[in-house]
Amino acid sequence: MSVRSNSTLRVRYAETDQMGVAWHGEYLAWFEVARTDLLRNLGLSYRELEEQGLRLPVIEAQVRYLRPARYDDLLEIRTAISHLSGARVSFAYDVLRQEGTVPLAHGTTSHAAVDREGRPRRLPEELRRRLS
Amino acid sequence: MSVRSNSTLRVRYAETDQMGVAWHGEYLAWFEVARTDLLRNLGLSYRELEEQGLRLPVIEAQVRYLRPARYDDLLEIRTAISHLSGARVSFAYDVLRQEGTVPLAHGTTSHAAVDREGRPRRLPEELRRRLS
Amino acid sequence: MSVRSNSTLRVRYAETDQMGVAWHGEYLAWFEVARTDLLRNLGLSYRELEEQGLRLPVIEAQVRYLRPARYDDLLEIRTAISHLSGARVSFAYDVLRQEGTVPLAHGTTSHAAVDREGRPRRLPEELRRRLS
Amino acid sequence: MSVRSNSTLRVRYAETDQMGVAWHGEYLAWFEVARTDLLRNLGLSYRELEEQGLRLPVIEAQVRYLRPARYDDLLEIRTAISHLSGARVSFAYDVLRQEGTVPLAHGTTSHAAVDREGRPRRLPEELRRRLS
Repeated sequence: MSVRSNSTLRVRYAETDQMGVAWHGEYLAWFEVARTDLLRNLGLSYRELEEQGLRLPVIEAQVRYLRPARYDDLLEIRTAISHLSGARVSFAYDVLRQEGTVPLAHGTTSHAAVDREGRPRRLPEELRRRLS
Repeated sequence: MSVRSNSTLRVRYAETDQMGVAWHGEYLAWFEVARTDLLRNLGLSYRELEEQGLRLPVIEAQVRYLRPARYDDLLEIRTAISHLSGARVSFAYDVLRQEGTVPLAHGTTSHAAVDREGRPRRLPEELRRRLS
Repeated sequence: MSVRSNSTLRVRYAETDQMGVAWHGEYLAWFEVARTDLLRNLGLSYRELEEQGLRLPVIEAQVRYLRPARYDDLLEIRTAISHLSGARVSFAYDVLRQEGTVPLAHGTTSHAAVDREGRPRRLPEELRRRLS
Repeated sequence: MSVRSNSTLRVRYAETDQMGVAWHGEYLAWFEVARTDLLRNLGLSYRELEEQGLRLPVIEAQVRYLRPARYDDLLEIRTAISHLSGARVSFAYDVLRQEGTVPLAHGTTSHAAVDREGRPRRLPEELRRRLS
């Protein structure tokens, strides 16, 4: 019974490239929006977590691109926590056109918990509990 | 004996995020620069390939982040073709600080050959020959 | 009585820089979102206008930054058409924190109407009428 | 006899948009590269200035776009300090194609000196002397 969340966003003109589609690197920015949304839906603010000294840098990212997203497309990102341990958390993302059923892309990101100086630390108990 | 190429680039201020390091999505832009350089070193221009009707969209990307890159760091990207078939080509990238020996990140991207309308096509024979 | 429109957007992590605030260039992406919204509110789709052969490239942009925007801030952009002629249109933007009254930034962009090949053309009569 | 500096950079694929040209907001990232270069040419490191507690956030930016820059174009940016006072510095930029004489864009950015907390401060005497 994993934690899930849905995000909606519209492809910006600045996000397109000369192939006429959303540039493939933008998906990582969208995933970041989706993670912030997932945490917010759990009553958590990643901004406050950072202010309290936690950092969750990406240590691995992977994206499979199936179909292009285009300027002004309204996208849905379905996000789930796919793995959680004492000092790591991973997210999985599906990108679809809104009201669509055909996936545009799948992705995953893995994150290590570190402190302000970048040293490994454990995820706070309270955070782990909410994420499970 | 695979095709290899080295690229040098400096981390831009705009590429940093509030963690004080290069934002993880920028690596995909750097890989793109590195691919263009590898082709140029082979006497090929990706710009001309596109003008002739070939597109090589990314169908999969993967990055492992080992150590952060920081503003104004001079980076070296070592690029190699890791896989080549009739309609696909993959690249592998190592990111290091220049004159450094410690890797900052590893990545791979896979590309499908498509035409202007996005339909699958084969890589031109001449291109395949140069890439092998 | 000029055309006006409001847009809401949240500052993304990817949009911050190591000063801990939204990078100043992102405002131009936000203005672009705001322009698309203004046109949509008039029943116009910039995507369709482009598909019909009209381009509205930016020929001048100006931004004054008064107070920083931060990660996860919910922003409001108030957009108005500030100038309209046969072949040009200009927009003015105010950026505020949502429910705020203190401006974060003011900006303007001016656009020339060109065709697919980049040659100057006139704005379509129907478009001009709706924008006035 | 003002301080001047030249920078060279190549337009990245990620910097293009679906109009087939460099996205207009990227010029602000290029200007930032050009400022860092100008300071470096004076024996100054903006990275070290920040580490010593100085910030130079952009308080105003302006760009006029005359001709598009395209993917893989090799650009030259000619940068000069256009104004200098006790707590402010402004830069002016000309963007050209390398070995070209026809300008693609002109821009200016103005910067306020602030401390780590964002409070106004004066430019260090030594810095002002080198910039004049």
